[in-house]
Amino acid sequence: MKIIEQANLAKKASFLLASAPTDLKDKALRNVVQAIDKHRQEILEENKKDLDEARINNVKQALVKRLILTSEKIDRIIDSIGDVIRLQDPVGKKLWARELDESLILSNVTVPIGVIGMIFESRPDALVQISSLCIKSGNVVILKGGSEAYHSNRVLFDLIKGAVEAADPVFKNTLHLAETRQDISDLLKLDKLIDLMIPRGSNQLVRTIKENTKIPVLGHADGICHLFIDRGADLDMALRLTRDAKCQYPAVCNAIETLLVHRDIAGAFLPKMAEDLKEVELKGDERTLEIIEAKKAVNDDWSAEYNDLILSVKVVDSLQEAISHINNYGSHHTDAIVTGDSKAAETFIDLVDSSSVMWNCSTRFSDGFRYGLGAEVGVSTNKIHARGPVGLEGLTITKFKLIGKGHTVADYVEGKRHFTHRDLQ
Amino acid sequence: MKIIEQANLAKKASFLLASAPTDLKDKALRNVVQAIDKHRQEILEENKKDLDEARINNVKQALVKRLILTSEKIDRIIDSIGDVIRLQDPVGKKLWARELDESLILSNVTVPIGVIGMIFESRPDALVQISSLCIKSGNVVILKGGSEAYHSNRVLFDLIKGAVEAADPVFKNTLHLAETRQDISDLLKLDKLIDLMIPRGSNQLVRTIKENTKIPVLGHADGICHLFIDRGADLDMALRLTRDAKCQYPAVCNAIETLLVHRDIAGAFLPKMAEDLKEVELKGDERTLEIIEAKKAVNDDWSAEYNDLILSVKVVDSLQEAISHINNYGSHHTDAIVTGDSKAAETFIDLVDSSSVMWNCSTRFSDGFRYGLGAEVGVSTNKIHARGPVGLEGLTITKFKLIGKGHTVADYVEGKRHFTHRDLQ
Repeated sequence: MKIIEQANLAKKASFLLASAPTDLKDKALRNVVQAIDKHRQEILEENKKDLDEARINNVKQALVKRLILTSEKIDRIIDSIGDVIRLQDPVGKKLWARELDESLILSNVTVPIGVIGMIFESRPDALVQISSLCIKSGNVVILKGGSEAYHSNRVLFDLIKGAVEAADPVFKNTLHLAETRQDISDLLKLDKLIDLMIPRGSNQLVRTIKENTKIPVLGHADGICHLFIDRGADLDMALRLTRDAKCQYPAVCNAIETLLVHRDIAGAFLPKMAEDLKEVELKGDERTLEIIEAKKAVNDDWSAEYNDLILSVKVVDSLQEAISHINNYGSHHTDAIVTGDSKAAETFIDLVDSSSVMWNCSTRFSDGFRYGLGAEVGVSTNKIHARGPVGLEGLTITKFKLIGKGHTVADYVEGKRHFTHRDLQ
Repeated sequence: MKIIEQANLAKKASFLLASAPTDLKDKALRNVVQAIDKHRQEILEENKKDLDEARINNVKQALVKRLILTSEKIDRIIDSIGDVIRLQDPVGKKLWARELDESLILSNVTVPIGVIGMIFESRPDALVQISSLCIKSGNVVILKGGSEAYHSNRVLFDLIKGAVEAADPVFKNTLHLAETRQDISDLLKLDKLIDLMIPRGSNQLVRTIKENTKIPVLGHADGICHLFIDRGADLDMALRLTRDAKCQYPAVCNAIETLLVHRDIAGAFLPKMAEDLKEVELKGDERTLEIIEAKKAVNDDWSAEYNDLILSVKVVDSLQEAISHINNYGSHHTDAIVTGDSKAAETFIDLVDSSSVMWNCSTRFSDGFRYGLGAEVGVSTNKIHARGPVGLEGLTITKFKLIGKGHTVADYVEGKRHFTHRDLQ
């Protein structure tokens, strides 16, 4: 079936799925758990086909590692569906209600967004997680995984679709799989049928998608995060947080790329830092190089996302300069200050324009699981809809419901009746 | 100054304005009230220049009417700023807080979006309303009004900018005026500097903007609204609601364009409706034409926004057919059912995918003032960020704030510490 035909079916299905009750959605998810558990062998066999092809195609070892499924990984996948089942249904929440006039009651209620396009790379477990989140939030989803996981994605998708559709007719046509590169470019044109695109993967993937579609895109293209060591910082804490934010997992978006250091503390802090982070390649501005040995940072370093054990270091004159540097060169993802001065911290938190702003803790905390959102769709650096780690709530929007007894606007325009606008519980 | 330079200043100003306290923003708005009050004569004189030019250029009477300012209109403009002052500040609201671990506290707080681009037509009072809403919500705004209101917009803008900047240095560069057609196309390219575009005006304006920018656009291009007369409808109520929804103000987006009538009630209802709505040109489907006289509707009529005293009429076999028709041909703006059957109403409300869905009242109610939102930025048919009539809340987004005492992620990954994830008040 062509992707546009799938998307048309998806759109139609989305109207029905929007009002599926929680117990039905949870039943569908329990069916998925059973199906995956029952067909472990088949999943592992299909996964082996992908691994064999990866070997033939000389795919990078890091990628192969993410591709591998084992019985233990399948256990974890099953657990993650259980987590989604236990999450509160984000749909159907009455956010507020207001009496506009006697017997004219307005309410604002959460509903699913509609049709979500999800594009992701390698890990086949992402397909399961994304599908579960969409089922729970009542969204129809069109999935496109990486070609290197073709067989694994196909078998998982077929199992999930079968299990979900067996739960109730309302799930018919609510899951779709796109499989070719052409499908992606076709998908990106369907702004009348797809309500939101969520790409998960490399910066390049996200950027390409943002540049080639009129569909709103939820995601972040860059993670250029900063740690600012203020003059009032505790030196030991500053060292521990620098190590955690840079080295604990350098390949991820919430690891820091630039360290900003207040000039009053630079002489005391920088030599200890250089000693402590021996495995990190440092790139310093001129004032940094007066204190420690490092490569010379060029202007591009301040907006580079290394995703590696490389750190640019700059000495700043003031809190204000640190804030300006972050707002100017950063990607508005996550930035942190280390200081004992609560006034400086407050200013930093207020004026740094990022999705997460932190005081005396590591930027690595900005993540849906650590924030207790239950499950994460991704981290958004958008300034509308959802910002920061996005949970199930980010997959919903609202609907106004107005119930009257024959009320006409004319009566209010002509002054025969007047609005009461009384908020209800 | 070129628009890109203005936008750069705007972006910088937005970081500071984001944390301006409520009393300062209200003080700025009170200054605006005083300035407009004091300079009435000047405003009226500049407005007269626009009116003279409109006469010379043979501008349509309807447009001229919206352009005219009088001392009474200025009173109303001043009142509307007072309304905005009285509204609650939408910024700085703590939506929730959670203890992630001992002394590691996460909160989610509302913040302004940043830089808003507002493009609007004719009415100079729109400039004042939009500016007030942006000041109150801490957003920097770049305004572009219609060229036919050039002088009126310029004098109002200068007065507002002067009054606001006199209140506090934080307001410097927070208001900008774009004045040429070229400015619009330049603005639309600045997706790195402008966070949200809000066009207010004709469908054509909104559509053109959506098609020519990567900046998110909040608005609705079409208002194809429906009223469905179910078989369980009270005939008198159905007549009154049809009249109100079609005739009370046919030129607006929440007036209906199509009337759907259940076949079981069509014979009783349609002749009365035709008799009652004599001033309306009816376009009926075949079954309608068997009952009343009307022009024959063609397929395009079901997706036409007449904005005039024209109404397409279709007889449907069932509630399901009505819902499918609305989801298929409508613009997902506002749709209503008239019925005595609460089960049918519930199904309609659940399955119609529109920003506002109504039961036994007129579609004309879907409006920020009538909904009690205080002031309206516009009506959104977007499926993300904000949907339906949008008040001040739609001009905000959130920021995560995380405060610790030196917490590192490594401790949690290594199992030395565990998250408590305890929701706080």
